[in-house]
Amino acid sequence: MQTVAIVGVGLIGGSFGLALRQAGFTGEIWGVSSPSTIDSAVARGAIDRGVELEEAAAANLVYLAQPIQQILQTIGALERLVRPGTLVTDAGSTKRKIVEAARETMPEGCFLGGHPMAGKETRGVESAEADLFAGRPYVLTPLEMADLEAGAAKAFRGWIEKIGARIVVMPAEEHDRAVGLASHLPQLLSSALALTSCEYPEIAGPGVTDMTRLALSPYSVWRDILATNRDNIDQSLAAMIGRLEQFRAALSTRGLEDEFEAAARHALRLRQP
Amino acid sequence: MQTVAIVGVGLIGGSFGLALRQAGFTGEIWGVSSPSTIDSAVARGAIDRGVELEEAAAANLVYLAQPIQQILQTIGALERLVRPGTLVTDAGSTKRKIVEAARETMPEGCFLGGHPMAGKETRGVESAEADLFAGRPYVLTPLEMADLEAGAAKAFRGWIEKIGARIVVMPAEEHDRAVGLASHLPQLLSSALALTSCEYPEIAGPGVTDMTRLALSPYSVWRDILATNRDNIDQSLAAMIGRLEQFRAALSTRGLEDEFEAAARHALRLRQP
Repeated sequence: MQTVAIVGVGLIGGSFGLALRQAGFTGEIWGVSSPSTIDSAVARGAIDRGVELEEAAAANLVYLAQPIQQILQTIGALERLVRPGTLVTDAGSTKRKIVEAARETMPEGCFLGGHPMAGKETRGVESAEADLFAGRPYVLTPLEMADLEAGAAKAFRGWIEKIGARIVVMPAEEHDRAVGLASHLPQLLSSALALTSCEYPEIAGPGVTDMTRLALSPYSVWRDILATNRDNIDQSLAAMIGRLEQFRAALSTRGLEDEFEAAARHALRLRQP
Repeated sequence: MQTVAIVGVGLIGGSFGLALRQAGFTGEIWGVSSPSTIDSAVARGAIDRGVELEEAAAANLVYLAQPIQQILQTIGALERLVRPGTLVTDAGSTKRKIVEAARETMPEGCFLGGHPMAGKETRGVESAEADLFAGRPYVLTPLEMADLEAGAAKAFRGWIEKIGARIVVMPAEEHDRAVGLASHLPQLLSSALALTSCEYPEIAGPGVTDMTRLALSPYSVWRDILATNRDNIDQSLAAMIGRLEQFRAALSTRGLEDEFEAAARHALRLRQP
């Protein structure tokens, strides 16, 4: 892997560039973004220089780190640009729509969907960190399992491991169901809690402060996620509502000891990768 | 205030002793707890020595930092022990039952209910910190507003401020409704989320990890809280369920932009005391 083009040099794209450099990548890193973002990204050392998408398509790895709707547009534009041997991957937070678009337009074996399970509430290359992916899962959703073994995909997997992330392979459908439960549900709960418990800010303790941290996330990041994973999110919310109704019933009868103990076990398991 | 007796020298009681010392209290601090806890508390500097409840009742300030059911028992036992000029206060997480018990048994003006809005997931005097209350709300729920102006109560309020906490005065009924929304609801949401989203621990990101931190809390701390604030908790859960149903409806129609923006404003407000 000699050249990497990062399309959309924000928090994730910028962090990927910084992480590659920190892990010892000595090739060229190009960026496709607005002129002001390119300037910031070059100044931070996340990329070497800005290029147009046409030029970016000639890189060994094309890394799409835009919002989901823009990734879909870029995949459309890359159809006539991508050359044999180039691997296009993405970091979009939902995978079904993206993988479908790639299946329709990309040459076989050229595309590998991905989703680094990392982030924070602030955006932009200014917030990028070389360690953002370290110790975090990095989901890959190949169209065919054989796609993981192609030369460019093997090189890319090697770099994911060198930047400290943990590869998890699953179909796009399973990924979207999993993030509906493990990522989109927590976000919606945090927003709903902020709206529900806001009546008494003067007595807020550390618990509610932590639980409403995700509610600070901007809607611009979430619009596309909600739009492309509606069915799974609806099911996650329904499951959560069912659980809360069960808590209400148990509160006035046997108490919640079993639920607390099982929840503590699950919460511990999330902390032991 | 020359002598303080802390009944129940765990996380909260131990932290109160350490905080008093750090804030310059030079009187004696006694502790009522099991012999092993007394040894640990003396070793940590949270108290000077252990005493029996009979002796503790002679202190200027008697600080009840036990679980709620034990606070209720101690209030009963103090009825025949407490002397004029002594102030009994407590740090229980719900206030109606405790304040009712005190109203029935304590001499007038001798009791002032309290609740420091501070804590963490670990327990015991080993986890105590002199700064636990710093920057945090400290709710006082006087039986009569005049109770705040008595000599011992004024001295106690002065020490709350010296340990860096922010006094908030409200009736016990309002306190219990407020913590139902701002403390008990976040705890139950965290436990319910841990149970609902546990299917995919391999892809857990920082969001769900933060959102399930409270789920690590032991049930032993929560049993009494849930039992003494059932009505308010049920209403909080019902409000949250209503909010989540509203989210489900909006997801498939107009989206959640307004909700995200209002939630972010509320979440910010919780961070600006």
